[in-house]
Amino acid sequence: MTNKHSYTAEEKAAVYKAMAERRDMRHFNGNPVEPAVFGRILKAAHMAPSVGLMQPWRFIRIVNQDLRTKISRIVDKERLETAKALNDKKDDFLKLKVEGILQCSELVIAALPDKREKHIFGRRTLPQMDMASLSCAIQNMWLAARVEGIGMGWVSLFDPETLASLLKMPKGSLPIAILCLGEVDAFYDKPMLVQEKWAEERPLEELISTDFWDEGF
Amino acid sequence: MTNKHSYTAEEKAAVYKAMAERRDMRHFNGNPVEPAVFGRILKAAHMAPSVGLMQPWRFIRIVNQDLRTKISRIVDKERLETAKALNDKKDDFLKLKVEGILQCSELVIAALPDKREKHIFGRRTLPQMDMASLSCAIQNMWLAARVEGIGMGWVSLFDPETLASLLKMPKGSLPIAILCLGEVDAFYDKPMLVQEKWAEERPLEELISTDFWDEGF
Repeated sequence: MTNKHSYTAEEKAAVYKAMAERRDMRHFNGNPVEPAVFGRILKAAHMAPSVGLMQPWRFIRIVNQDLRTKISRIVDKERLETAKALNDKKDDFLKLKVEGILQCSELVIAALPDKREKHIFGRRTLPQMDMASLSCAIQNMWLAARVEGIGMGWVSLFDPETLASLLKMPKGSLPIAILCLGEVDAFYDKPMLVQEKWAEERPLEELISTDFWDEGF
Repeated sequence: MTNKHSYTAEEKAAVYKAMAERRDMRHFNGNPVEPAVFGRILKAAHMAPSVGLMQPWRFIRIVNQDLRTKISRIVDKERLETAKALNDKKDDFLKLKVEGILQCSELVIAALPDKREKHIFGRRTLPQMDMASLSCAIQNMWLAARVEGIGMGWVSLFDPETLASLLKMPKGSLPIAILCLGEVDAFYDKPMLVQEKWAEERPLEELISTDFWDEGF
């Protein structure tokens, strides 16, 4: 049974397929992303909801190779810092491929703008709603990339202040994501961290309760 | 031109249509959401990416009517506090319908779990990546709801500590979203805040730059 606003079975299947097959990619084959495809992926971001309609997303497309190299170094520095902080899991972590910055075809920095404090609607008690809106935009990008056959990876292993300084970002703004986009030889069958046995996924049933918090959460 | 991993034109169109027609809904007609549909929407959330595979999403389905009423009161209190904080825009804000808690068919609280500090991967310098992952999950829910013909609204007008206390949530956890789901008579043609002239949307072109921050951002 469906209601009058429901999409067709084929349309629904396409959306659920995109969600199921979307992966956080780190391996790219270097083939260029067509401008029209790249444009549609960014347009998908811009279709996201935002708290109080603040649209707190800014995208910096990195085309300068020297900048790309410097961004790669910033990430590698944090990769090693993270490894240290992981103690027991350090060696396992260092075996993982955690980014594809030098192999991807399009590199985009997604950032929160400065002067966000003027947006109070929906943020007086939850100021982090700006981050939520930007994340919804990035999830749209991820799904759009997947249907276009393009892989995308969200890298958060970086010191935000160092990256902000490199990209001449103003005080109050904040880079949140280094997004690597590009063609891939294959999408991972499962999340790479599952394939590499970094962690196991928990079933949905364990993460839902009724009326009150569940101790098993 | 497409690459070998690209979806069909029809599949792509379905995904882009869902993104374009998704709305943050506050008006519901009260018809029940079928359990199978509700299940698919939650399953969509669970297909989201998460930093270091931490899956920082917990969902509390509110079925108790007394709880629902109390949640509605918590939101109304914050609605008035927000109105005060908005000064000049206070009267315009108070005219807006900002939630549909008592009219929606399913009420779900989405929350970050406690003990998140043990997840360091991708969060050492950006701890807010947990919020990002939960937001990606909620965007998936929004799109899934849209293709099922169900409206969803994300309400963030509440004091998180008060809501956490009501739902017996442990220290360290954080409710992030009051999600209202239900059938609607019609989806808004444009974001409600645009229709109500609360704010104007900025074009995507203004929010993209090359290599460095744009002063016009």
